Amino acid sequence: MASGHLSREEALACANSRHACHVMLYCDTKAQLFGRFPIKHVVLMQIRFDGLLGFPGGIVEPSKETLEAGLTRELLEEVGMAIPVSEEDHVNASYGPPSSSSPSSSSSLILHFYVKKITEEQIKEAELAAVSAAADHGLEVLGTVRVPLYTLRSGGGLGSFLSHTFIGNARSQLLDAILRLNLVPAHKVYKALTHALQGHKRSSEDLRAALAMIEDRGGQRL
Amino acid sequence: MASGHLSREEALACANSRHACHVMLYCDTKAQLFGRFPIKHVVLMQIRFDGLLGFPGGIVEPSKETLEAGLTRELLEEVGMAIPVSEEDHVNASYGPPSSSSPSSSSSLILHFYVKKITEEQIKEAELAAVSAAADHGLEVLGTVRVPLYTLRSGGGLGSFLSHTFIGNARSQLLDAILRLNLVPAHKVYKALTHALQGHKRSSEDLRAALAMIEDRGGQRL
Repeated sequence: MASGHLSREEALACANSRHACHVMLYCDTKAQLFGRFPIKHVVLMQIRFDGLLGFPGGIVEPSKETLEAGLTRELLEEVGMAIPVSEEDHVNASYGPPSSSSPSSSSSLILHFYVKKITEEQIKEAELAAVSAAADHGLEVLGTVRVPLYTLRSGGGLGSFLSHTFIGNARSQLLDAILRLNLVPAHKVYKALTHALQGHKRSSEDLRAALAMIEDRGGQRL
Repeated sequence: MASGHLSREEALACANSRHACHVMLYCDTKAQLFGRFPIKHVVLMQIRFDGLLGFPGGIVEPSKETLEAGLTRELLEEVGMAIPVSEEDHVNASYGPPSSSSPSSSSSLILHFYVKKITEEQIKEAELAAVSAAADHGLEVLGTVRVPLYTLRSGGGLGSFLSHTFIGNARSQLLDAILRLNLVPAHKVYKALTHALQGHKRSSEDLRAALAMIEDRGGQRL
């Protein structure tokens, strides 16, 4: 997951590139699920307009503003709070997929990823602002969610969350960050990924059954 | 998806059963994504403590309260608002999976599903209450999200959302409800499911790559 990474400076030196900046906001917490399972950390992600899970952020034009000023502007739109993000919060940059709208375009998309630790109070403020103040609420952003980093006895928690569908490299960014910050030890991340693959397989079977049911009802016609 | 359904009365007549009630809250909307794509309807779901997508609700004990009173109580805990749900909102009931905590238990779990149309204003109030007033926020509920029922030119929207991982029969309940209420025509649901399966396949490959990466780092040990 660390392959093909660029530094902030290397990325900005790439001519004819577009830049997108996203940030993982997180905090520590003493809260306990069911009064006994320590939650330890809260990480924020969101369901985007396209139905996928991703981190808040968006396209920034370095000719008009710094990457960090652009990201802070995106946070104001999506989270409803102008949380300041600085150069020190930059983790890495990587090349995104070729543009699907203009595949012949020579301009590549560079994805900048930031991580910023804030307080638990700020996380709660952000969740509230996201539904009460953010211009994008119900439009570009369909909801803000906390990522469970724990694993329950049933195997649920991080593993089930990782089995969802993410935009671009957002799942890798999440995994990279929780490993680098040691929010979850590597052997537990490994177990969670194993659980994610199992849940994913059952989900495939369910999806195929749903598709067959609609076919029976004639839903594939028209 | 309509197989094995019981009416409310049939379900309540089953001796030695436990009952869980969940509700799909939804509204119509004139809002447009990017100022031009009609969103048409807002459907609420949530990310649960176990990382899975589901509808708000929970276990109800019919010996102590009506199913609907129990569901309204659960909504107060999870959504932060006592939205009254009535018998007329009951759609169907079905048998849940055998209890994983006590597989030898003879008591089966019956899943009751309700659909309730509320106003767009009430949806916004519910989203706000879910993060500001609900006792379960950040604990049993990790976030409230709107389900995109539209399909974008990229194929994203409902299709991507359906590729996530859901608790129990929640995805079937969602599909059943949007077809029955004609919120999305059957041929568009079919296309969305086809898109979901494609995204799901890519996601499997990503998960396997992530697992291999952690193996390389020695994460499977310990």
